[in-house]
Amino acid sequence: MSSTFGRVFRITTWGESHGGGVGVVLDGCPPGLEISEEDIQIELDRRKPGQSKITTQRKEEDQIEIHSGLFEGQTLGTPISMMVWNQDARSKDYEEIRTKYRPSHADYTYQQKYGIRNWKGGGRASARETIGRVAAGAVARKLLKRDCDIDIIAYVRQVHTLVANVDPVRVTRNQVESNIARVPDFEIAEQIIRRIDAARKDGDSLGGVVEAVAHRVPPGWGEPIFDKLEADFAKSMLSLPACKGFESGSGFGGIAMTGSAHNDPFYNDGSGIHTRTNYSGGIQGGISNGEPVVIRAAFKPTATILAEQETVDIHGNSTTLKGRGRHDPCVLPRAVPIVEAMMALVLADHYLRQRGQRG
Amino acid sequence: MSSTFGRVFRITTWGESHGGGVGVVLDGCPPGLEISEEDIQIELDRRKPGQSKITTQRKEEDQIEIHSGLFEGQTLGTPISMMVWNQDARSKDYEEIRTKYRPSHADYTYQQKYGIRNWKGGGRASARETIGRVAAGAVARKLLKRDCDIDIIAYVRQVHTLVANVDPVRVTRNQVESNIARVPDFEIAEQIIRRIDAARKDGDSLGGVVEAVAHRVPPGWGEPIFDKLEADFAKSMLSLPACKGFESGSGFGGIAMTGSAHNDPFYNDGSGIHTRTNYSGGIQGGISNGEPVVIRAAFKPTATILAEQETVDIHGNSTTLKGRGRHDPCVLPRAVPIVEAMMALVLADHYLRQRGQRG
Amino acid sequence: MSSTFGRVFRITTWGESHGGGVGVVLDGCPPGLEISEEDIQIELDRRKPGQSKITTQRKEEDQIEIHSGLFEGQTLGTPISMMVWNQDARSKDYEEIRTKYRPSHADYTYQQKYGIRNWKGGGRASARETIGRVAAGAVARKLLKRDCDIDIIAYVRQVHTLVANVDPVRVTRNQVESNIARVPDFEIAEQIIRRIDAARKDGDSLGGVVEAVAHRVPPGWGEPIFDKLEADFAKSMLSLPACKGFESGSGFGGIAMTGSAHNDPFYNDGSGIHTRTNYSGGIQGGISNGEPVVIRAAFKPTATILAEQETVDIHGNSTTLKGRGRHDPCVLPRAVPIVEAMMALVLADHYLRQRGQRG
Amino acid sequence: MSSTFGRVFRITTWGESHGGGVGVVLDGCPPGLEISEEDIQIELDRRKPGQSKITTQRKEEDQIEIHSGLFEGQTLGTPISMMVWNQDARSKDYEEIRTKYRPSHADYTYQQKYGIRNWKGGGRASARETIGRVAAGAVARKLLKRDCDIDIIAYVRQVHTLVANVDPVRVTRNQVESNIARVPDFEIAEQIIRRIDAARKDGDSLGGVVEAVAHRVPPGWGEPIFDKLEADFAKSMLSLPACKGFESGSGFGGIAMTGSAHNDPFYNDGSGIHTRTNYSGGIQGGISNGEPVVIRAAFKPTATILAEQETVDIHGNSTTLKGRGRHDPCVLPRAVPIVEAMMALVLADHYLRQRGQRG
Repeated sequence: MSSTFGRVFRITTWGESHGGGVGVVLDGCPPGLEISEEDIQIELDRRKPGQSKITTQRKEEDQIEIHSGLFEGQTLGTPISMMVWNQDARSKDYEEIRTKYRPSHADYTYQQKYGIRNWKGGGRASARETIGRVAAGAVARKLLKRDCDIDIIAYVRQVHTLVANVDPVRVTRNQVESNIARVPDFEIAEQIIRRIDAARKDGDSLGGVVEAVAHRVPPGWGEPIFDKLEADFAKSMLSLPACKGFESGSGFGGIAMTGSAHNDPFYNDGSGIHTRTNYSGGIQGGISNGEPVVIRAAFKPTATILAEQETVDIHGNSTTLKGRGRHDPCVLPRAVPIVEAMMALVLADHYLRQRGQRG
Repeated sequence: MSSTFGRVFRITTWGESHGGGVGVVLDGCPPGLEISEEDIQIELDRRKPGQSKITTQRKEEDQIEIHSGLFEGQTLGTPISMMVWNQDARSKDYEEIRTKYRPSHADYTYQQKYGIRNWKGGGRASARETIGRVAAGAVARKLLKRDCDIDIIAYVRQVHTLVANVDPVRVTRNQVESNIARVPDFEIAEQIIRRIDAARKDGDSLGGVVEAVAHRVPPGWGEPIFDKLEADFAKSMLSLPACKGFESGSGFGGIAMTGSAHNDPFYNDGSGIHTRTNYSGGIQGGISNGEPVVIRAAFKPTATILAEQETVDIHGNSTTLKGRGRHDPCVLPRAVPIVEAMMALVLADHYLRQRGQRG
Repeated sequence: MSSTFGRVFRITTWGESHGGGVGVVLDGCPPGLEISEEDIQIELDRRKPGQSKITTQRKEEDQIEIHSGLFEGQTLGTPISMMVWNQDARSKDYEEIRTKYRPSHADYTYQQKYGIRNWKGGGRASARETIGRVAAGAVARKLLKRDCDIDIIAYVRQVHTLVANVDPVRVTRNQVESNIARVPDFEIAEQIIRRIDAARKDGDSLGGVVEAVAHRVPPGWGEPIFDKLEADFAKSMLSLPACKGFESGSGFGGIAMTGSAHNDPFYNDGSGIHTRTNYSGGIQGGISNGEPVVIRAAFKPTATILAEQETVDIHGNSTTLKGRGRHDPCVLPRAVPIVEAMMALVLADHYLRQRGQRG
Repeated sequence: MSSTFGRVFRITTWGESHGGGVGVVLDGCPPGLEISEEDIQIELDRRKPGQSKITTQRKEEDQIEIHSGLFEGQTLGTPISMMVWNQDARSKDYEEIRTKYRPSHADYTYQQKYGIRNWKGGGRASARETIGRVAAGAVARKLLKRDCDIDIIAYVRQVHTLVANVDPVRVTRNQVESNIARVPDFEIAEQIIRRIDAARKDGDSLGGVVEAVAHRVPPGWGEPIFDKLEADFAKSMLSLPACKGFESGSGFGGIAMTGSAHNDPFYNDGSGIHTRTNYSGGIQGGISNGEPVVIRAAFKPTATILAEQETVDIHGNSTTLKGRGRHDPCVLPRAVPIVEAMMALVLADHYLRQRGQRG
């Protein structure tokens, strides 16, 4: 029951990285929303492998198929089933991990949990699982844009020790897409690309931070107590492969401040109530306050590296394992559309929930 | 529907800070678990106000009442309803906020969301809401201890810029409880107490980090994709008042490492499979791997301060507001039992879920 | 997790028949609804024991207490916690069933399921559990009445072999309440009262059918596939103690018809689209069509009788058991407000769900 | 969110009758269960159209495809995605209903609910939706058989006024499958086949009752209060197209009895505790008691008939509509495997839930 996310705008993803395919069923999307396969494909293309020299060279066309829920280009209000077939499955790359657990991967824990695993790839733990999320997220974004003019923009804020200088309020998607690292700070972007490329050549990997902002989220979204906007964002991010941390607004950095500096004063400039600062990240008491919603997710260095590593085999004996094949030296650039999708899914869910409560 | 948490071991909390009382219904606790009011009370006493000079002076006895679900000292397998009455409600302290929104509190967002709010206190946004969680968490801990010998220990790791030096693997509850700051590093503890006390005198407030560790969580708990252990921990933490960030294992700090340094090598010392390092924080692919589970939650500086602040009133007019009355200059010490409770609730839920899947 | 009902307008009930009390937490009620304790009490008084000579003589005042979720007479949009204390618990009446299973009661199955049971009464299987449902149902009714002018009327349609002649479209609550049997057919009502009274004197019991109708349910409520209006009504009814059957519209009786007779022709009389007959019971494809919604629930003869019966004890040995104490010779009259409450809860849930989907 | 059923063993169905296809995602099936496409196909073949002269002549091969969740013939514990492509879609048969509502179909209510509908067929209201249920039900049956030796047998008990004489305890699947009506009473079966065939020739339709029994359900399954076994069975049945009624055990018929006759006396014959009669239908207090579980579902006469009928068009104007094309004169024979599937899904869910609670 754990492959389902959302209460009203609800997705269920399915599929292993090697096997038939991966997909999603989106239930709860309101009727009458115009959706085309192009709307979905454009987002999938942003996350697909082989986009650039700093992503994995695995080739997958990741062509979306929509099997239900649409009629004459509009949503019916019924479940939307979408999928992508697996194509470039080189299972022989995985032969060695049939019997050995890759460190900091999910091989060992899946085996312990299920007593069985699809060792021909990462199974459900593969980032391929996120295809379904991105597809459903594209629908969520259309709904949010049409009804509330909401824009969601994510970008790479940090890779390894390199931190970009970005103003979340002014950054544009064009800036983000202007370089293969998706870092909207051109100077740091170049450094990041070089550092990722160096890690790739070393067979090593790097982590980083994706920051995301949602503009024009109306006040009043998010449901205390357990479905606070931040709580749902946090869950959505930590459900992503390799994600190890989440922040909203000032996050961990806010700890160095005192309350008198950290509080966001309200003012009214005639256009409505705003806050002078936005340490709250647009969320107070778990509910949006109308300011830009700002969150961040930390991704660890990719576990797949090409060095020889100490590990154990499936019988528990000590051994070593040397990575091979294709890998993402840094997941951050491809994580950008995924983070946007999850943010959109959370917001679409709370949009419909609030509409139900207040009419 | 958002006051419910957990799928199998499931709580629903209720109650405002001023009004009849606050409570919880715990559904899904297995039958035959010995529970007494003392088991609950001991945890409530750790979170109650007025414990020390560095917590709010609001006086509440917070005496637990159990109204259902027990028979002759054992759980029946039916819902356990527990509550605490509100006593020391000085609503006059709140008269001014009837018409003015406190900065970085939930007054404004509740009003926007619901069109109505109980201005006599923080309503559902008050930390009093966590009483129900702590009560239910005490039951979860007994279950986890009895069936799996799991121990959960949380402590204050950081307040403002003061970071304690703690080894999560060796820290004991006695160490944590040895000082009013709940910092198991005696030197830093004293500095922290002084700094909180100074903030209190200034009418200002401080934030910090609670770290929590769970020992002896068996491998295999946590359900991909959306109910990864980390995802549920993240949601549980970000659902807490004032929480703005979450990490598991290396978290944000792991970003400065490369994959070759960050991966946790497996080895077998004869007693079983372990990892040489624990940057994963005991969780890989969202599933426990048998190592200590380590998480951290960041809490912002308390929004209640005694300085005069810029704000708007309920008509949208600019005004100022000066805090008064009692407040917690730093929520961290009292957050410790709350974080432990949430960790226990997540683990109990996944314990029962895994038992259902694997028998 | 099974004491929770509803997705958006959601209740969680708690409490055993003997012990502290019984109650409910209602989460998801929209803010701004006027609610008083009198609104709740009036419905509880209709279900409470000791109302007349044909109900159990157990005396319970069943005085409602509301502990949260209201402010100045209005709902806050937060959980509404309501409870009733248990008072007239004559546990000595139950001493014998400590060691013997009452036939067709839940003693044996609870013991098998949980390995423990509160033998001092029926525990959760007692009809006292429905107090929470009736309390929450009263809130649901106010919401449905205020926003949609919906009226819900239930009544006893049949007891044993006596079937009342009632037109569901014209029946009024006054007619229902005009006699202690809640049978809005005065001739049959008298016969039913006599027959119940005779059963009571014999120490025997009778079953029957409650029929319920909801007026002015707008078209479009109910969600295919699994949350069809009929499916949720069916679940709600079969969750009631002693309920063994459910029908909507023509139900089992419709089987004797052919499709050409059973189909409900549409017509438009200028005021809107209606159907000439209503064998559909106001529901087509699981969705309301604007006609009166008509359902029926069958209740078995009460399992508590005063005759000596064959049974086994908790060690599995054959024995006999003679009922004693107070019992309801026929639950039907008291089931009326309970059926109404469940119908209201289902409709309120679907009202909010539809509002969320269509704005 | 309403296309999902079950809490732990959980299905989500998708697909319209005309469009890409129909399918299901089954999440929560334990790992290590052997499943092949043949296991699924055998059940789909029992429900597919065109089986005999008394079912619709629509031709669909309904060939199952499994896209995820299996590895080397075993379940992985991850979501199992299964689908069937739509093939024989004669949309021209539906051209007239583009603008006219078929009486007692879901055309009108879908249009009212969603403001849009796929008029090329019944959309989600089509019985094709049940393909996903039958596929997932086949998995549930394998699980129940392997772990608990449970057998589930359904059959047609009644068509129109013809009632078969069947002993639910002794009936076999071979008897059920021995005739195209799936009536395990050979004399009545012949009459039923003749009557259905006559209705077909008249362009009319008939309803009936399916009865189902589950053998060897252990005591203790089912969760009070709202997830009583009967409540979940009722919901599952009323979620089926054309279902208008549900009974368990004595059902509506039990009303004619008194409690002293209706109670099921317990006895112990040395092999364990049993009941002398089984009016409870194997369920007491919503929990299985170890006796055969017996339920019944009433299906109305199919709404599709070939006569001319009064109706309105999508503009609300009075008109008439004459059915054409292929139709099922009686859904009962094909409903048998669907009822079995739903019964299996409910039982599998409660099996895993009980295993989680009691280990």
